[in-house]
Amino acid sequence: SSIEAQIQAASGDSSASRDAFRQAVVNTLERRLFYIPSFKIYRGVAGLYDYGPPGCAVKSNVLAFWRQHFVLEENMLEVDCPCVTPEVVLKASGHVDKFTDLMVKDEKTGTCYRADHLLKDYCKEKLEKDLSMTAEKAADLKHVLAMLDDLTAEQLGAKIKEYGITAPDTKNPLSDPYPFNLMFQTSIGPSGISPGYMRPETAQGIFVNFKDLYYYNGNKLPFAAAQIGQAFRNEVIAPRQGLLRVREFTLAEIEHFVDPQDKSHPKFSEVANLEFLMFPRELQMSGQSARKLQIGEAVFKGIVNNETLGYFIGRVYLFLTELGIDKQRLRFRQHLANEMAHYAADCWDAEIESSYGWIECVGIADRSAYDLRAHSDKSGVSLVAQEKYSEPREVEKLNVAPVKKELGLAFKGNQKIVVEALEALDEKEAMEMKAALELKGEVEFLVCNLGKTVTIKKSMVSISKEKKKEHQRVFTPSVIEPSFGIGRIIYCLYEHSFYTRPSKTSDEQLNVFRFPPRVAPIKCTVFPLVQNEQYENVAKLISKSLTVAGVSHKIDITGTSIGKRYARTDELGVPFAITVDKTTSVTIRDRDSKNQVRVDVEKVASVVKEVTDGLKTWADILNEYEIHTSESADD
Amino acid sequence: SSIEAQIQAASGDSSASRDAFRQAVVNTLERRLFYIPSFKIYRGVAGLYDYGPPGCAVKSNVLAFWRQHFVLEENMLEVDCPCVTPEVVLKASGHVDKFTDLMVKDEKTGTCYRADHLLKDYCKEKLEKDLSMTAEKAADLKHVLAMLDDLTAEQLGAKIKEYGITAPDTKNPLSDPYPFNLMFQTSIGPSGISPGYMRPETAQGIFVNFKDLYYYNGNKLPFAAAQIGQAFRNEVIAPRQGLLRVREFTLAEIEHFVDPQDKSHPKFSEVANLEFLMFPRELQMSGQSARKLQIGEAVFKGIVNNETLGYFIGRVYLFLTELGIDKQRLRFRQHLANEMAHYAADCWDAEIESSYGWIECVGIADRSAYDLRAHSDKSGVSLVAQEKYSEPREVEKLNVAPVKKELGLAFKGNQKIVVEALEALDEKEAMEMKAALELKGEVEFLVCNLGKTVTIKKSMVSISKEKKKEHQRVFTPSVIEPSFGIGRIIYCLYEHSFYTRPSKTSDEQLNVFRFPPRVAPIKCTVFPLVQNEQYENVAKLISKSLTVAGVSHKIDITGTSIGKRYARTDELGVPFAITVDKTTSVTIRDRDSKNQVRVDVEKVASVVKEVTDGLKTWADILNEYEIHTSESADD
Repeated sequence: SSIEAQIQAASGDSSASRDAFRQAVVNTLERRLFYIPSFKIYRGVAGLYDYGPPGCAVKSNVLAFWRQHFVLEENMLEVDCPCVTPEVVLKASGHVDKFTDLMVKDEKTGTCYRADHLLKDYCKEKLEKDLSMTAEKAADLKHVLAMLDDLTAEQLGAKIKEYGITAPDTKNPLSDPYPFNLMFQTSIGPSGISPGYMRPETAQGIFVNFKDLYYYNGNKLPFAAAQIGQAFRNEVIAPRQGLLRVREFTLAEIEHFVDPQDKSHPKFSEVANLEFLMFPRELQMSGQSARKLQIGEAVFKGIVNNETLGYFIGRVYLFLTELGIDKQRLRFRQHLANEMAHYAADCWDAEIESSYGWIECVGIADRSAYDLRAHSDKSGVSLVAQEKYSEPREVEKLNVAPVKKELGLAFKGNQKIVVEALEALDEKEAMEMKAALELKGEVEFLVCNLGKTVTIKKSMVSISKEKKKEHQRVFTPSVIEPSFGIGRIIYCLYEHSFYTRPSKTSDEQLNVFRFPPRVAPIKCTVFPLVQNEQYENVAKLISKSLTVAGVSHKIDITGTSIGKRYARTDELGVPFAITVDKTTSVTIRDRDSKNQVRVDVEKVASVVKEVTDGLKTWADILNEYEIHTSESADD
Repeated sequence: SSIEAQIQAASGDSSASRDAFRQAVVNTLERRLFYIPSFKIYRGVAGLYDYGPPGCAVKSNVLAFWRQHFVLEENMLEVDCPCVTPEVVLKASGHVDKFTDLMVKDEKTGTCYRADHLLKDYCKEKLEKDLSMTAEKAADLKHVLAMLDDLTAEQLGAKIKEYGITAPDTKNPLSDPYPFNLMFQTSIGPSGISPGYMRPETAQGIFVNFKDLYYYNGNKLPFAAAQIGQAFRNEVIAPRQGLLRVREFTLAEIEHFVDPQDKSHPKFSEVANLEFLMFPRELQMSGQSARKLQIGEAVFKGIVNNETLGYFIGRVYLFLTELGIDKQRLRFRQHLANEMAHYAADCWDAEIESSYGWIECVGIADRSAYDLRAHSDKSGVSLVAQEKYSEPREVEKLNVAPVKKELGLAFKGNQKIVVEALEALDEKEAMEMKAALELKGEVEFLVCNLGKTVTIKKSMVSISKEKKKEHQRVFTPSVIEPSFGIGRIIYCLYEHSFYTRPSKTSDEQLNVFRFPPRVAPIKCTVFPLVQNEQYENVAKLISKSLTVAGVSHKIDITGTSIGKRYARTDELGVPFAITVDKTTSVTIRDRDSKNQVRVDVEKVASVVKEVTDGLKTWADILNEYEIHTSESADD
């Protein structure tokens, strides 16, 4: 399971080499301004990062591809809602009451820690370092690790006491665990009496607009709405969680609304043959590893709940791998029963392996009708869909009619509660009561909201089944939600794209990001081989033709050696470099193979465009043009 | 001035017709989901709006063009910083202390109002409706209107008392004016002791990164950084301010860093001949109107402070008019002395005329070195640039050396304050002190931080001028800041693009948005003339070829009349409609002229692409293809 992987990652040599690898990636990213710790001149704020120029370009490219791959190709309705959200919305969604972490406080300094993290760290360290531990004790610690997400505040507190865990920095005693809400709270308007929060996800903005969006879609299901935007979580940031645990991040979310009675997907056949690493619940429970499965088969066998969920799993797989995520280090892990909300029908996370272990980057959940029902209930506006029958259908409808007068005489002030309990009977319960009343004239009936049983007499309620003609079916749609943590995907992409290679001219290792052209912050660089006006003019001419062709690029006319200039551009992940070494033709160099071809000045822009747009591969270019070999032209 | 225009707009017939026009636009925008009041099912929150599907597409198109026009064409460094901002940053920028509005409270209900708005409304209403007013009284009210932005809390309070202004809704008495900070406050981290705010602008994120960005740019000036993102202001929202006064909005900001001694711009000649409505300070002060000026001339005559500021004014003009803003209703208004911050060298607003009057949509300010200095001072990190001299220069440097021992004996605990005051002397003051000390042996010296004058003796300080060789000049760059309110620009664009035309088949007026293709949410629609499988297949074929060509489009295969389908697509501002009325060729209809041409099925995608990409005009298409006339084909 994921915990095993983490324990393994945190132990021995493997951990040290992972740390070194991560340090190399992060150093490069920060030095080249892919990232900047926010507000650095003020010593920064934990969990907040800026995207500098190349990072910002990569992010825009990833979002543009997301829009292309999901919004445009699937005809989704994109919306853009505010981050500031009034309390009532997040009360309805459950975030005000339940979006909490259990915290403990250093009783002397007031520093806060996540209770589960302290317990986890304690267990892991013991298991790694205490070689004299009994098998019984080890089993206990492993059990705690496995149950971590299920522990209540009381249980967490008891374990912390039992193990004698203290504050990591000061060894001071810790408070009992208490819930801390992760939303940033604020106040809307000048009166100070309207609480609001910065949204912790973008989904709620879509749910509250369901009615308008359904209408916009011609009152037809299924349809999907999508939103890209900032989300905010006031997390506790432990040191060295780096770019993976942040307090503000970009989410891209899809809410696909579907008839709960028909979760088939018209385009499922387009993904059904895809095969990739899946990690179903059963494999996790029985201690096995993820294995390759065909998504079509997984849906057919019922491992994945339905076609629409399966379709999105397939589309997410295509999205991530086309961005450059390594197929071998990507898996879809099904949530265990204890991880899933009670209303969810099924849930799979796209997890990507990085130096931190397997990281959840996309969640794909069938949330059933939960969200729309919650907002219907709270707002009083019914968020439903209709299916019009082509001809009216005869249906048997249960009719439970409490006789309020009789009930009032019998139950006085409790009358209303008993009436509601009777009206809430489902078909089976109601028909059983009817049978019992006819047999015995009265029946004992448990009213939960009264916390006791009352006696219902035959005169107090009439229960019948009636035949009715129905012209339409009214129902609350199910929601299937793929939710993408864009920052995490980008970070994993950086790790999967990074490699080093020796320099020819010095002892150092040179850094390279092997971004596909679609992701690369700049598609090509142009440099004159030597500083000279003629070559610079050719470079400027090429730059203009690249601008016309819409290829983003940069000119580097510094006098630095060509090797150093290649190294600079490789470190930014620029896929192609054009070197002006003649006035009529120039060379194009491929970043990863370092192969070069010679191309006429007039043709160079269109060649680079074809290969960055994916119309041709580099192999095609090698076939078509003269291969250039030069000792001096590389490092 | 702008107040005159607003008074005029608010009076008589013109106001009624403006209101009706606005209502027609806003109704269309809301019905077609360009906008949705946020959290509508919960009765909404004043000042928060969602962009629905077509609005979201328009916004993305506007931002994509902004990136193209500014970031790419000018090689700007784009960054992306968080919205959550720690207090220290906004303390340094002045927002914590000064980003306030003066408010008054209804003393019974607690409802809050902007003090200046109540006073403005009172004056305007009196001037319009009280026909018996004396000339003297009228002059007084006009004076108050003109001075509104300069009034202190006390003066505002006094005027409110003098005029007997009460709460508009209840007629209850009002509190004295008090400052209310417009930032949304929150708390960062679980301890509750680190205050933070949602950023009120994106600029600070760039300023704090100056050092890294300057390095990234090869330690060269000038360069510009840019950021697109959300900003938050907890405004008081009066009814009917609609889409112009909102609490969360998208800003696009540029910070162009330049040597204060050289504010020329290498590309100024490219805009110098542009001529448009400008409204310099002098014209406003002397009660004249805006007039057409050439930007080159305005810079040459010193009306606009410098070339770089002038260059950006020209670029903003091009940006707005290419989006579809009407040239006749766009002007650049210079800030009056009392509108401008004390440190600003010059400031111009791009104002767009809408049904609300002239609206500030872009601010273009030369903020001098203020922002970088403020963050240097607060953080202790020096945010400066260097100019390396080609050969060392000899300069005379003032040297003020307080003799700390003597000062300590004389001033004890105040020694440090006196030392600082001496070190802060400018050249003129220091040379005067030197002369006085040499003449009289002592001098009286006002130390502001002590609030009194002290006696400085000759032994306490040595003042001299020294010749030094300098190899470089170190200075704080000036910042020229064009700042775009994207939501306001889009709203004005909607008003400028909207018109109605009579329906041929009914009495109603049909709504049209004349968006240029670059802005239109969808570039074309495809409909079969009648419902029939053959035509539908042709429509699907065309749809596929449009997808390959990258033209966003929609198919409408409903059985609605062709006239109604044209009306629907016109109301979304879709520039071209393709009607399938044969299997070999189809018609393309231009939204505004309603002219149609007949084009072969295989050619239609490339024709639409050429005209939406701006490679050809509709006139070119009319020349090249057979003009189609049909009675039935339009409403």
